[in-house]
Order: sequence, then structure tokens, then C-alpha cells
Amino acid sequence: MDYKRLQQQFEFILEMDKEKQILRQTHINGYSRQENDAEHSWHMALMTMLLSEYSNQKIDVLHTIEMLLIHDLVEIDAGDTYAYDTEGKKTQADREQKAAGRIFGLLPEDQGQRLLELWKEFEAYETPEAIFAHAMDNLQPMMLNAANGGQDWEKHYVHLSQIMKRNYKTAEGSNNLWDYAYDNFLKPNLETGKIQND
Amino acid sequence: MDYKRLQQQFEFILEMDKEKQILRQTHINGYSRQENDAEHSWHMALMTMLLSEYSNQKIDVLHTIEMLLIHDLVEIDAGDTYAYDTEGKKTQADREQKAAGRIFGLLPEDQGQRLLELWKEFEAYETPEAIFAHAMDNLQPMMLNAANGGQDWEKHYVHLSQIMKRNYKTAEGSNNLWDYAYDNFLKPNLETGKIQND
Repeated sequence: MDYKRLQQQFEFILEMDKEKQILRQTHINGYSRQENDAEHSWHMALMTMLLSEYSNQKIDVLHTIEMLLIHDLVEIDAGDTYAYDTEGKKTQADREQKAAGRIFGLLPEDQGQRLLELWKEFEAYETPEAIFAHAMDNLQPMMLNAANGGQDWEKHYVHLSQIMKRNYKTAEGSNNLWDYAYDNFLKPNLETGKIQND
Repeated sequence: MDYKRLQQQFEFILEMDKEKQILRQTHINGYSRQENDAEHSWHMALMTMLLSEYSNQKIDVLHTIEMLLIHDLVEIDAGDTYAYDTEGKKTQADREQKAAGRIFGLLPEDQGQRLLELWKEFEAYETPEAIFAHAMDNLQPMMLNAANGGQDWEKHYVHLSQIMKRNYKTAEGSNNLWDYAYDNFLKPNLETGKIQND
């Protein structure tokens, strides 16, 4: 056995424990506290297991789940950038690029390269798997926000146009899931004014 | 589209959010707080991505990851039973069986059945995937306990014989991972007395 390889892998796995301390703006159901990146990633992987049947295009489920499990690791260094934080968005790409170099560089070269490619594929948002993964990444907090009565949308004064912009490809990932989400998660919160209708 | 099916799936997915509030005895690295089941599941899925190459037997990685993503869902109703809680262990099987009925019963029948079978496969601990999944389930908290200087072992007065009993099949999952874990996670804590050597 290549002892050094396994040592590097365990060092990486332990370092990734920090993902549990990266807080998102979304709250867990019941609004008792913010969700963290590890929980978010687990929840989306579970969603993919159950909802991949609604993907417009045929997807490789393992590839999609692996992408979701690692897509936020760069936030260990770069921090979470809220979806509607205009200032943060300006520096996000640079911060995350640098983070990817350090974080995936902890692994043995072949695996570091594989995870880096997977992360880049997610970011490029072009393959069927990346498009479906982004749909999960958008729908999971949308579901939680709706379950929490739209409090996070209200707090951040989120406009419908911002949500639509962020979700410009969600229907391309899945027409069915987008239709369901619009009717069940967004529409009620537009009616109550928790989402600003512009 | 079968609207009722999708509605059931989203109700299940939202209910599973409770997994984030099931606390384990293990602490995250740094010992600031206990880990929860969602974080634990995510961490093991990530480990499987990176460590499946060490499995003694060839395993289906997607099948193993899916098993790990759902294996603790029954704890939403049944609670977490600490690995070395002798009293709790007596009622664990009954509590979890009942929980599985309710929880997987929330899903459309075909998916509920699939997840129930996956959970039973994990519990039966016989297929290569279940054996490797258990290895992850044992090694992930062992890694964290070691990183935290053995505090959880000390607090619960854990004996080596208990750890060996729990890990009776870990080497069957992976000789390499078991050897590494024994040398790096257990041995130093036996030497400092954080694990009781019996």
C-alpha cells in the first residue's frame, strides 16, 4: 500500500470537516439556526437520489451526486457568498479559484485533479449533470425558505427578478421541478409579499 | 407529470431536514460542538468517493454512497444510539424498525421500498457495499475522535475491547484502512490512556 497516499487522503478528509462550520444564509426548517454547507450538500445528494427521474436530459446520478458533495468545498477558504450579495459576487470567482488550488492540492495529484475538474464542471454549468446539480442547489434552499414562511427572502428584501435570474437554467434542468417549485415555493410568497414582486 | 408523486417526494425531502438536528456523541474537529447525522452522512459519502479504492472487494460506489446518505434517517424517529450504550442497544432494533416503516412510508411506494431495502442491506451487514459502508461509519468518528485528542473516548470510558467488537468486520471491508486507522487513530490513544486498554 502507498502509505503516503492514504495519509494525504485522510488529511484532506479531516480538513474538509471545516465544511460543517461554513454557514449559509438559509435556515433549517423551523428557523432555529442557519444551515451549514455539509448539511446542504447532504440534503441535495439525497434529493438527487429521489428526483433525478425529473431531469430533462438523462444524467449520470453518481457523477451528479459527487459534484454536489464537493461543489462547496472551496467555501472553506472563500466563505459562503449569498446568492443575492452583489458586492460579494464581484470577488467570488477569484476567491474560489484560489481556494480550489489549495484545497484540491491537498489530495494525491490524480484525485485532486479529478475533484478540481468536477468543481470546474459544476461552475461551467453546461453538462446535463451540472445543470441538474445547479437545479438542486437552487431548489433546496427555495424549499426551506418556503417552509420557513419566506422569512429569509423578506429579511434580505429579495426581488422576484433576482430569483428568476439565478434560476435562468433551472427549467432547463427540469421543467417539472421548476413548475412545481414556482407554484409551491415562489407563488405563495409573492402573494404574501415576502418576495418583492418587481 | 404525476403531481401527487412529486408532492410526496418533496414532503419526504422536507421531513428529512430533521436529520440536521439529530446529534451524535462524536464532536466535530476542534470539539466546539457535537456532530449531527446529516454532516456525518455527507462526510462518509465524501470519504467513499476518495477511499473506495481500498475496499477489499470491488464495490458499486453509487450504491454505497446512497446507502450512507440514507442509513441514519430512521434516527429522526428513533434517536441516535451511541455505539457503546448497552441499554440503548437493547431497544434499538425495535425503535428503528418502527421508524423505518413511517419514514420510508412517506415516499411513493416504489421509492419507499427501494430505500427500505437499502437500509435493510446496510443493517444486514453482508454485501460488499454494506461492509464498506460500515467501515466508513466506524472510521469517520474514529478519525474525529483521534483529531480531538481522544476526548470522546475518555468521556465515555471506552475500552479497546468495545472498539474491537464494533469493528469486527472493518478489516473485512478494507485491510488497508483498518491498519491505517489502528496505527494512527487508536494506538496513540491507547498509549495516552484515552482509550482503556483491557
